[in-house]
Formats: sequence, structure tokens, C-alpha cells
Amino acid sequence: MKKNVLIIGAGGVAHVVAHKCAQNNDVLGDLHIASRTKSKCEEIIAGVHEKGAMKIDRAFTAHHVDATDSEAVADLIRETGTQIVINVGTAFVNMHVLDACITTGAAYIDTAIHEEPDKVCETPPWYANYEWKRRDQCTEEGVTAILGAGFDPGVVNAYARFAIDQMDEVKSIDIVDINAGSHGKYFATNFDPEINFREFTGTVYYWEDQTWKELSMFESGHTWDLPVVGPSKAYQSGHDEVHSLAVNYPHADVRFWMGFGDHYINVFTVLKNIGLLSEQPVTTAEGQEVIPLKVVKACLPDPASLAPNYTGNTCIGDLVKGVKDGKEIELFVYNVADHKEAYEEVGSQGISYTAGVPPVAAAMLVATGEWDTKTMRNVEELDPKPFFTLLDRIGLSTRVLKGGLGGEDMAWTDYAS
Amino acid sequence: MKKNVLIIGAGGVAHVVAHKCAQNNDVLGDLHIASRTKSKCEEIIAGVHEKGAMKIDRAFTAHHVDATDSEAVADLIRETGTQIVINVGTAFVNMHVLDACITTGAAYIDTAIHEEPDKVCETPPWYANYEWKRRDQCTEEGVTAILGAGFDPGVVNAYARFAIDQMDEVKSIDIVDINAGSHGKYFATNFDPEINFREFTGTVYYWEDQTWKELSMFESGHTWDLPVVGPSKAYQSGHDEVHSLAVNYPHADVRFWMGFGDHYINVFTVLKNIGLLSEQPVTTAEGQEVIPLKVVKACLPDPASLAPNYTGNTCIGDLVKGVKDGKEIELFVYNVADHKEAYEEVGSQGISYTAGVPPVAAAMLVATGEWDTKTMRNVEELDPKPFFTLLDRIGLSTRVLKGGLGGEDMAWTDYAS
Repeated sequence: MKKNVLIIGAGGVAHVVAHKCAQNNDVLGDLHIASRTKSKCEEIIAGVHEKGAMKIDRAFTAHHVDATDSEAVADLIRETGTQIVINVGTAFVNMHVLDACITTGAAYIDTAIHEEPDKVCETPPWYANYEWKRRDQCTEEGVTAILGAGFDPGVVNAYARFAIDQMDEVKSIDIVDINAGSHGKYFATNFDPEINFREFTGTVYYWEDQTWKELSMFESGHTWDLPVVGPSKAYQSGHDEVHSLAVNYPHADVRFWMGFGDHYINVFTVLKNIGLLSEQPVTTAEGQEVIPLKVVKACLPDPASLAPNYTGNTCIGDLVKGVKDGKEIELFVYNVADHKEAYEEVGSQGISYTAGVPPVAAAMLVATGEWDTKTMRNVEELDPKPFFTLLDRIGLSTRVLKGGLGGEDMAWTDYAS
Repeated sequence: MKKNVLIIGAGGVAHVVAHKCAQNNDVLGDLHIASRTKSKCEEIIAGVHEKGAMKIDRAFTAHHVDATDSEAVADLIRETGTQIVINVGTAFVNMHVLDACITTGAAYIDTAIHEEPDKVCETPPWYANYEWKRRDQCTEEGVTAILGAGFDPGVVNAYARFAIDQMDEVKSIDIVDINAGSHGKYFATNFDPEINFREFTGTVYYWEDQTWKELSMFESGHTWDLPVVGPSKAYQSGHDEVHSLAVNYPHADVRFWMGFGDHYINVFTVLKNIGLLSEQPVTTAEGQEVIPLKVVKACLPDPASLAPNYTGNTCIGDLVKGVKDGKEIELFVYNVADHKEAYEEVGSQGISYTAGVPPVAAAMLVATGEWDTKTMRNVEELDPKPFFTLLDRIGLSTRVLKGGLGGEDMAWTDYAS
């Protein structure tokens, strides 16, 4: 049994994590939130109290921390008596926070892979470049580290595991992420533009025929006809979960598909071709050194600001094909989330909501011991059922199309063998 | 008779001005070129010598000057014995250089209207906001100032004057600027991106029915079938010459049309809507204050770098409609320039060439006394014939379609009454 949670980060996802932790603080204990800008943490806590989200009367405290300073994070973990860290800061801080957890023995949970600011899209599998190098150390020290426990990566890894558990053999895993919502702005990204664009400027790696293959972004497109959101064009994209699923299920093809409208693609293409998505500095005529991507980020709407007017749904799921009892079978395991409902509950848009609820479910499973692994794990290496049960209860229900897309629609509990 | 020329600026147009001054230094005397970066001036002079462009053996000297410092410019004019200043620096320095000319008595020639860095698109007529406020002073001091003596504004003002001189009454002046050249880059502007985009981010003012009217950019489009370049889509744009022609010919409608391909419009629209063409600073997440437009400029190709691979032609001309001897008549007065020929002659692309040759012709007319007005003048207020004669000789020939577009094609000398 572990308790007392430290949330690292104060962006849109951290906001959701804070609300969900508060709603479950009977399980999670004292809550802390820390970021470079303490006032943002204080605003989040004020919002939690405004919504009356605290289940029981316990502490929720704001702190300042530079999360790239591992020592400072470790000190904060010790001072606050934290036993579970939910890291939803920028992807650049992961390894520093993980090291602080290893030093102090706290459990570590994150929602996205570590990135170095000056590198885009390293060699696959991505986890092997950073996180997995600490796996043996976690095992030796008995430190629990749950990697990629957001929605995608995260819930979709559990969807894959759940579907594969129903089969004798898995042939392919296609993860499809469609946001059919509308924010009413000319252009906006649903999470940090810097991280969003970095996802799509590099090589698209996918796993097929037991080898890594490469595409350029928007090279491979397919229209998927999904529940609720209907036919949606999506493109193969580089994404974290491909890099663990391919290693854990090397005989399956593993692909990730992200939905993009023509407008998004056009804006992205213009910005990229001009060089405005570059993380390498340019020098203006006046001699100022500037990283173009950071200026684009400064010009775009804050993803959190989209929430009040966001309407429509997201549908994210895994189409898993395999063999059972000698016959080919297909399952589509998925969730549909509503932007407006998310805003009404926690004041966030649906993308932040789907990313922020799962790490809280993971933290609760660590707290109760079910996922307290004492080593480093990706989500598909853990039992998905208690995770789905918790997600159903705290806001993200799991459903299954038996027979794949267009198949019979049922709750996962009705399908589970 | 005036002599000794100081060129202000060291960009693409200054490069052409330098070459053309050198080719005519028997008329113009000693040459000087000054900019914020003296090394750029030295490079231009080295290029002039490489091409063997100096007609006679006289001085051509590089200087450093901050052209926003009127005193410093005045000192340089005195030290160099300059009697004619050709200002082809950024449009932000015009008034400072003009003031230096008024102080010292040197003649002033520019190619674009003054702009303040923090203002876009002020109230019409634009010349009345800055330059024309010095007109009385020029008259009193006997200082020659020729405003807007590039191609457009400049030659097109002379085209209008020439056509109107053939008529009893003018009804309308439509200036059409088509660049049908290809530079082979994803996207580039043909002159300073900062000035280029500023032209199109504000209100489009035009003069119709004896009043100023307003449009948004790309609101009013028309396909013009022009000599050599063929049918070309152009859009009403805000442009300097409309603001003097409307005042000088208040009974005529005056419009300016700039050719744009769909690709240019798409890129422009994306950048503008995101806020990347703004001249107002934004603050990055790291706290750096940056003007987005300056970053876009830093990312785009240097206009001068386009020259070696630029192919195709420009066609710029005036369709002037009016009445002569009781009958309606139309004339299209125009020039066609070839990017490749421009590069071979002076190492520049065609847009810089067409902008840089005319102020040198104007300087020669000031030197010989024909345009030494001892007051401030826009180009349509001056006799166009000696200007055309010189332009014919130094690289930009004037032609006329009698009857307007699709009419009989002839040299201006054959048409002139």
C-alpha cells in the first residue's frame, strides 16, 4: 500500500490529474502539485476546491520545482512524504523525475516518452534510448515505474493486452485515435504544440513483418469507420506505444493511426516546409537567436483555453486481429469521450481528460497494490481488468466491437472471457 | 547639374542600383554605398568590379551608417560630397534620410513609402502621413525629392502620366503587377519578407468614384490576360502609387492589382491567421520576447539568394481608360522583364532588377537637370519621356498596347503623340 501523491506539471493534463486525484483522495492520501510556476499549481488547486472535487478533507499543496533538477525533485518527494509521483510535466523532464523516484523509492507514473529538446525522433524502439536503461535499477531497488499510462500510450496498451488475452495468437494491432471535436479556432493543437508538432516532424516508425519500417508523416492514410464519430481519415504516425508493443508482441504488426483533417495537414505542411517547426535556432536580422517552434507555440491558443467551447467526441481504440481456436478473429476495443462533458466535470477539454484520467487510475492501482510492480513496466505488461474497472468508474468506459469495426457493440465486461 | 551618388542600403535592390550606377558613372560621378553592415556594401562593390561594370575609372566606396540617425547620414553626405542620395534601405528609414537631404541640400530619391515599424497600413493617402509633410520645406530650401521612383511605384506612375497625356480625360488607372517567374523554392518572397507581408496584412485602399474605398486582401480578384506571361490571376492590393495618383488624378478610379498564385495565398493565409505575420511581440514559454514576423523572415530564403535559379518573366503595366476626341480609348503601357537576363547582367533576380534600374534613371535625370525639380515630386508629376528614353537604354523598355489588352503592340516611341 502506497499513498500521498506528487503531481509534476501544471498544464492541461495536470489539471485533470489534480481533479481526479482529489475525487479519489480517500485512496491516494495527501496531494501535492509542483511546477516551475507555482502560481499555476495554486490556480489548479483553487479550481479543484471550486468544483468541490475533494472527496475527503486532506491536504492539497502547491510547490515550486525545477523538474530538470533531479535532486530538487527528490528533496520535494522526501519533504512531502510522497510515495507515488504522477509525472505529467513536459516530456523533457521524464528521466530527471524518474531518477528522483529511484533515489527516494517513490513509485513513478508518466504518460509520454522522454524526449531530449534538441533531438527529434530517435531510433526505435524509443523506450530503449532512455527509460528502459533504468529497468534493472528499478528491479534491484524495488521501485515501481509505470511507463506511458495516459490514454495513448496507456489505455490503448491495455486494450491491446485485453484483446490479445482473448486470442491464441495475435496478428496485428492498429491503434486509431480520432478527435472529431470542434474547438472553433482557426488552428490549435490539443496539447502542447511543441510536443504535438515534434511527434510529426520526424520519421514514422512502425512494426511489420517483425522489423521496423519507416514512413514520412501523411504518407500512409486510411479512412476508419469508427463508433459515434463515423468515417474518419487517419494517417500512420510515430507514437510511443508502438515502441513497447512491438517489443512485447514481436510477431504482431503494430501501427498507430492519428486522425487529421485536411486543414490541419495544410497548416502543418506550410509551417514545416517554411522551417517554423524547427527546434534549431535561427537568427533574426536584428541578431536575436530564436527557436521557431517556440514562437509558433507562443502564437497558437493555449490548449487549455479551448475547453469552454469544445464540442463533439473523441474515439480512440485498438483494432486487434488474431486467431482463436484456429479461426481468424477481430476485436475493436475502444472508448468514446465527450469534450463538453469533460469540461462540465473538470473544466478541461476531452483530449486533456482522456490523457489525465488514466494515470490517476494507475496511481490508485499502485496505491492498492494491484499494480505496485516493484519494477519498471509498460501498461500492456499489467493486468488490464482492474484498470478498466477503475476507468469505468472514474470516467472512461471501455467497450468492445466483437468481430471488429462494424461488429456487435458491448461493454468489455460482457465480452471478457 | 548634380553629381556624386550615395546609395543607402545593401539589399537586393541596392545591389542592382550599384551595378547600374557603375555602368553610368560618367554621368553620376563618384559613387558611395552605406548600410548598417559595411561588409555587405563591400561585397556589392566587389561584385560590381567582378562584372567590370564601372564605365569610367572613378571612386566607389563603402561606408557604415545607421540610416535611422539623420545626423549621421547628413555627415556622410557632406564628407563624401554627395549631391544625389538614392535611398533603397528599408522603408523604415525614409524620413531620416529625407531629413538628412533637406539639411544638406542633396537630392533625394526613394522607391517605397515611409513606414513606421509598429504601424501597418495607415490612413490614405499614405504619402500625406509622412513625406508630403516635408514638401513645403523642400520647396523653400530648393531641395529635389523624387518619391517612389522604383518600378511600382515609379515607372508605373510614369506609365499612367504617359497614357493620360494621350487623352483629353482619364477615367481609370489599373496597375497590374504579375511575376510569372519561378524560383524553385517551396516559398519565398521576392523582396524583404517583412515589407512584403506588411503590404498585405492591412486594409486594401483604392480610389473609386472620387473616394477612398476599402477591401480586405484577396477579397477582389481578376484574371488579366497580359503580354508574354498570359492570363494571370491578380488581387487588389494596397500599394504606394494609388495614394499619389488618386490625389493627382482625383477624377480617375485608381486600383492596384498584384498577381498571386494559390500557393502563395495559402501560405500567406496560414501564417497570417496563426499570427505569425504580426509585428507585435509575443512572449515564449521561456520568457523571450519575439516579433513573429521577424522569425518568419529569418526562416524564409534571402530574396537575393533566389537569383541564380530564377526563370521566367515579369509583366508590369498600367491599363488606362479615358476619352480622346469624344471617343473612349484604352492603352496598356507595360514592360516585360526576364529573370535570367537580369541575373546574367547584374547577378540579381528580375524583381530586384525592375525595382533597382528606375531610381538610377531618375538619378541620371536629376544629374542632367531634367528632373532636378528643386521641390518634392511624385513620378507622375514629371515628364515621362526622358525617363522612358533612359530606361529603354539601360534595361527596361516601355511598350504600349493600343486599344488596351489584346490591342496592337508597339514601342512607346511609335505611339507617342
